[in-house]
Amino acid sequence: MKIMKKGDRTRERIIRQAAPLFNQRGYEGSSMQEIMAATSLEKGGIYRHFESKQELAAEAFDYAWAEALRARRHDLERIENSVDQLIQFIANFVERRGSVPGGCPLLNTAMDSDDGNTVLRARACKALQGWQNFLSEIIAQGMRRGEINSKIDKAKLANVIIASLEGAIMISRLEQNVEALRDAQTHLVNYLETKVRAQN
Amino acid sequence: MKIMKKGDRTRERIIRQAAPLFNQRGYEGSSMQEIMAATSLEKGGIYRHFESKQELAAEAFDYAWAEALRARRHDLERIENSVDQLIQFIANFVERRGSVPGGCPLLNTAMDSDDGNTVLRARACKALQGWQNFLSEIIAQGMRRGEINSKIDKAKLANVIIASLEGAIMISRLEQNVEALRDAQTHLVNYLETKVRAQN
Repeated sequence: MKIMKKGDRTRERIIRQAAPLFNQRGYEGSSMQEIMAATSLEKGGIYRHFESKQELAAEAFDYAWAEALRARRHDLERIENSVDQLIQFIANFVERRGSVPGGCPLLNTAMDSDDGNTVLRARACKALQGWQNFLSEIIAQGMRRGEINSKIDKAKLANVIIASLEGAIMISRLEQNVEALRDAQTHLVNYLETKVRAQN
Repeated sequence: MKIMKKGDRTRERIIRQAAPLFNQRGYEGSSMQEIMAATSLEKGGIYRHFESKQELAAEAFDYAWAEALRARRHDLERIENSVDQLIQFIANFVERRGSVPGGCPLLNTAMDSDDGNTVLRARACKALQGWQNFLSEIIAQGMRRGEINSKIDKAKLANVIIASLEGAIMISRLEQNVEALRDAQTHLVNYLETKVRAQN
């Protein structure tokens, strides 16, 4: 059992408390003043645990992303069939939110960092790759088991699912309702049932 | 013919020169210092034409969005069939960029403003609505003409197209290649040809 030192616990707490701020306001929009308020610490207390605001933002992103993925993977291991797993993943994406408010951390951080912040950009790239691999592996397993049409390109299907859901989040957040996410879900489920699932 | 006064010309120039900065760096990331550098004007020279940084950012968004739409609508009026118009719109989205660098202004501004900046958020909402209406009208015309399957829900189809393309831009910008956009294009064109186009 890993025993956490007091310093590590404080570090984790800072990350957890700063994550909502970065996810909602972005890197530039999160001032040191606001980070201090969110964590109830002085500047020195924060910099004792992080080399820079960038390091804290990167750790906060990883935390928010892990929380988002956890919500999206909810109950997935209970499902046997790979197509049903993809359908459940999509339903989780539409219905469940990670514990960090402010929308999808990947979409936020990708848009926030694509023109400059290289550290954050690298974290966003890694998160995207992890997500692509996660879906690709479900698809690959489905093909091995004969549950998924063997003509499907797993990387392309993963991209189509990710793109549809992430774009739909953008619309849903602007319209402040779940409609666009439901539209994406209906479209993707229909596609999975008619073109992806192996027909016997 | 509208004759533009010198003050209006300066105002337009400021908008044009500030737009790439806001589109790449975001609202908080664009400092007054950088806006001054981009426009070669002093602070007073900028505030003579705009009440606030927010007003300038909102005008810069409208300009960048108009440029993006212009690229995406390229040559559309030459095409008769409504399904072919949608296919061309998607191809334009993948292949043509607006004159303002930094990715899709709508996606950038939506993510930048969804947790706070109400003026920018309202402009992003209006842009999204305009885009949804533009695609819905093409689809409605296609249904009237019998080119599009009458069971299609035009608002849902518009959302699916927008979400797929916007999400794919996020992936493509992170991966710095056009692959995810091509995947979205292939998926959407296939869907349009098999499910949306009326089969005779």
